[in-house]
Amino acid sequence: MALTTMKTNIHLHQTHHSLADFEGIFTSLAQLCQAPGLHLFSETFLAGYPLKDLVLQSSFIEAYTKHLEEINLWLKGLPKHNWRALSGGLEYQEHQIKNVIYELIPGEGLKKIYTKRLLPNYDIFDEQKYFTNSEENFFYEYNNQIFGLLICEDMWASSFYKIDPCQLMIEEMKAKKIEVDGIINLSASPFDLDKDEKRKSRAQSLSKLFKAPFIYLNRVGGEDEIVFDGSSFVVNNDQTIIELAAFTAESKSFTLPEKLDQYDSYESKKQILWEELFLPQLSFEKKLPLIKRWTEKDCERAFNALAFGLHEYAHKSGFKNFLVALSGGLDSALVLAIVKLALKKDQSVEAIYMPSIHSSSLSTQLCEKMCRDNDIPLKHLPIKFLHSTVKNTFTQTFEEDFGGLTDENVQARLRGMLLYTRSNQTGAMVINTSNKSELAVGYSTQYGDSVGAISLLGDLYKSEVFWLANYLNKISPGIIPEEIINRGPSAELRPNQLDQDSLPPYEKLDAILEGILSYKMSRDQLIIKGFDTSEVDRVIKLFTRSEYKRAQFCPIIKIKAKSFGFGYRVPINKCSNFYF
Amino acid sequence: MALTTMKTNIHLHQTHHSLADFEGIFTSLAQLCQAPGLHLFSETFLAGYPLKDLVLQSSFIEAYTKHLEEINLWLKGLPKHNWRALSGGLEYQEHQIKNVIYELIPGEGLKKIYTKRLLPNYDIFDEQKYFTNSEENFFYEYNNQIFGLLICEDMWASSFYKIDPCQLMIEEMKAKKIEVDGIINLSASPFDLDKDEKRKSRAQSLSKLFKAPFIYLNRVGGEDEIVFDGSSFVVNNDQTIIELAAFTAESKSFTLPEKLDQYDSYESKKQILWEELFLPQLSFEKKLPLIKRWTEKDCERAFNALAFGLHEYAHKSGFKNFLVALSGGLDSALVLAIVKLALKKDQSVEAIYMPSIHSSSLSTQLCEKMCRDNDIPLKHLPIKFLHSTVKNTFTQTFEEDFGGLTDENVQARLRGMLLYTRSNQTGAMVINTSNKSELAVGYSTQYGDSVGAISLLGDLYKSEVFWLANYLNKISPGIIPEEIINRGPSAELRPNQLDQDSLPPYEKLDAILEGILSYKMSRDQLIIKGFDTSEVDRVIKLFTRSEYKRAQFCPIIKIKAKSFGFGYRVPINKCSNFYF
Repeated sequence: MALTTMKTNIHLHQTHHSLADFEGIFTSLAQLCQAPGLHLFSETFLAGYPLKDLVLQSSFIEAYTKHLEEINLWLKGLPKHNWRALSGGLEYQEHQIKNVIYELIPGEGLKKIYTKRLLPNYDIFDEQKYFTNSEENFFYEYNNQIFGLLICEDMWASSFYKIDPCQLMIEEMKAKKIEVDGIINLSASPFDLDKDEKRKSRAQSLSKLFKAPFIYLNRVGGEDEIVFDGSSFVVNNDQTIIELAAFTAESKSFTLPEKLDQYDSYESKKQILWEELFLPQLSFEKKLPLIKRWTEKDCERAFNALAFGLHEYAHKSGFKNFLVALSGGLDSALVLAIVKLALKKDQSVEAIYMPSIHSSSLSTQLCEKMCRDNDIPLKHLPIKFLHSTVKNTFTQTFEEDFGGLTDENVQARLRGMLLYTRSNQTGAMVINTSNKSELAVGYSTQYGDSVGAISLLGDLYKSEVFWLANYLNKISPGIIPEEIINRGPSAELRPNQLDQDSLPPYEKLDAILEGILSYKMSRDQLIIKGFDTSEVDRVIKLFTRSEYKRAQFCPIIKIKAKSFGFGYRVPINKCSNFYF
Repeated sequence: MALTTMKTNIHLHQTHHSLADFEGIFTSLAQLCQAPGLHLFSETFLAGYPLKDLVLQSSFIEAYTKHLEEINLWLKGLPKHNWRALSGGLEYQEHQIKNVIYELIPGEGLKKIYTKRLLPNYDIFDEQKYFTNSEENFFYEYNNQIFGLLICEDMWASSFYKIDPCQLMIEEMKAKKIEVDGIINLSASPFDLDKDEKRKSRAQSLSKLFKAPFIYLNRVGGEDEIVFDGSSFVVNNDQTIIELAAFTAESKSFTLPEKLDQYDSYESKKQILWEELFLPQLSFEKKLPLIKRWTEKDCERAFNALAFGLHEYAHKSGFKNFLVALSGGLDSALVLAIVKLALKKDQSVEAIYMPSIHSSSLSTQLCEKMCRDNDIPLKHLPIKFLHSTVKNTFTQTFEEDFGGLTDENVQARLRGMLLYTRSNQTGAMVINTSNKSELAVGYSTQYGDSVGAISLLGDLYKSEVFWLANYLNKISPGIIPEEIINRGPSAELRPNQLDQDSLPPYEKLDAILEGILSYKMSRDQLIIKGFDTSEVDRVIKLFTRSEYKRAQFCPIIKIKAKSFGFGYRVPINKCSNFYF
């Protein structure tokens, strides 16, 4: 039934609120819903995402229920008007919780019109723990135009789900002889480096399938380790109609485009596992697989995500000042560079250099150079005397000296203690400096250099640390001294120590780790890919043995499909080491 | 169809294997399956539980598939025999994984006969993340007798599941005119203090529903924070036919009892949430709710679970020696007592006392007394000098002294560093000494007294710490000096510090915390229960602010339905503090 009506004005509200910030959410709603047309808000906008166990807590339920009632009352009190809003929210009903879309009607109230069908329950997602799905109406009519509704995951097709919402909607359209004027997907979809393209490409496919524009609305925000980038968009066939910014709250309006006379044909492609959609690709072009080299765009995205995640975490835990332990190596220099470049007007960062007897004078010089060149306050806090005091105490008390790993760990732990003492003294947030390669093989000291409130590099392999450092030096020349980038990695905890002495070269190490983590490759599969048996075995041994360290690690800002952290769930203790 | 056959011999094998210990599992199978009759093994016995992300890893899948093939070949190679075995296992099929029961038939092979229907996905359980359920055959015939099959969760009825397997089975029995001779439930069910009674009571109900004996078989083992107690049993109506030990691998055989002429009537009772089944009850008898006082049986169970969990964790991570930091307070004394009483022949424990300028001479005396009386080596490692060195360094470097919380934390972190240095030196495992009340309000120093490989008391409120200490002193007089039990709790990090100065009395604090955690009570609900507004607000503030500490805490041996750890999933940062 094609009526000749004015095409609808649609207002995309890519908002940025904290979990359960009911006052802020209400204020936004009231401010943003004014112009005629259809106002769209993201998945669970009315509540927050991911709330985890909070959705089961009485205080949350009481406050959220009150909040919904207030919205309802506000709407009823409004004069009738030709705007409508669609917003994600939660529906509590008979001990079930549903992830739904509400229609907000001025002069009338709040009405549930759609329930999420696919509840993701992999990696960081636990939606089946909290929500019940259901299979209700797909279609929403406004201004004589019909929209197909989806919530986030509903737009994907994976063979491990029993249903495929988009196929179901197509079948219903055929059965009921409905043509849609647009598809609306309200999302709360975490960022990862490759996701933007994947989302857009899928949206274009679905635009072809439904022969209509596809509207994708995503939230902005950082919740512990997860960042939501927004990056909302509208596509029609292969054409991008409108795009919203990444990591910034933004409202944009557009007029729903006419449907095209001709859409390209839709290619159905089901994934076996959801993760395949977002799998960071190893490059298999060379003899050995390698981590796919980051483009400038990747570097820019990564930097933006890390800076945004850092600010979100700091703001929500009440910090304005940051503290970084500088070692003279690349990881801590990159962390300091990111923090410095991301710094807002009312924030500050301080670096501390804590040399031991094994620290080289080059390390001292490079730390000083970096801080001098970039106007960062640097404090020296040598641990030599404390270190020898601990050694003496042990010799006296236990009549036994220590060396080797014990001696290395003492230095790292003394630094951890001093760093946190300074943090306590100034109220600054300690930023962790470990990278993903180190975390994977356990190359850090528990309660030593592994400390921190949040980790910026915990989702970056060492190869990626180099790429990002070079990129930052390009956009901000001199932010990291070149000599730091070009030094061989060393913990400087014993004389002449170099990481490469005990590990495969980083490009191999990183590829093996990515094979294990994202491709779930076995030992034998890695060897078939061309890696040395002894190197694979060494990495697997280090990897499986260091689970206990990762179990006590701080949150890591997640920029990949597969990261250490909340979505990485493995036994700490395993029977043997053949698992990976 | 009632045939006059010999009643079946049933062999319950309550086994104890590490995750994916395929060699051990195969050996057990071959050794235990010999006598005529029906041999039963627990849920996922062939693979291990909980495997978490390991079930997705190629190395695991390859090794498990090979292991199944070996069992199959072994069975085919056996002469035909009148024993059968039923064992839990995993089935990989077309990218789906199912939690199933296999029938093992000598001379024939391995055959899947049942798939788990209810996949728990709350608290520590993530089964919907990994497994697909299905609704196949319930019934298994052996020796002319018919058994109804269930796997673990299938025996429970909760209104948040869409199906109720026991009701479905009853309906199928009626439709097909089947009478069962017994119900078999193969489980991998984690221990908690109240669970044994709940399981048995539910099994008795189901015996009445099905008018047949109910056979409950559970595994033994400790996987990180979770302990499986075994405690398998068979009931018929209200009568217990056989019981197996807690925390010990054991095989017991029995002859399937005749069905009774008369069973009591079944009372259907659906829970709204699964947790309600296992809810630790606050006692509401007095004016204010209180933590339900532990009986001697509770104390015994708790001690056994903690000792077992400790040994499992230590064994699997390769430790034979333990290290406890003794403070002169009750928590560390109780931890040391548990370790000492649990110690095996080839194991040892050492205590370290690390007094600061604020430590009282009474603390010194009590630590010495405890260790002397119980033959535990005690080392003194005063931190006074290190403490003043750190203070001097800070004064010099930053031209700023520190006091207050910073000064308290320095002491705790110096101790953490020294404790781990000793651990590195001797290869001993550090046992954490925090209790659940402290963890909940954040009364510990991150990287200080919160360190450890595993926590024994992290699931015990302070009230329960007292009860367990008194119990241990009763069964082993003098294990903890009475003066330690009767001292007021103090961190001794500043002059005359007492925990009670800044917190409600422990019995109130513990009840508020249990209200929040297990009952999910809101602030207002707690106040209605009779707690002071100011105390509730203070506890909530401390609780919500200390999430970041719990996020980096070590595994806690879980002895309750609701514990901190893997099953406790909350945002670290929240918008405000009204949630609990």
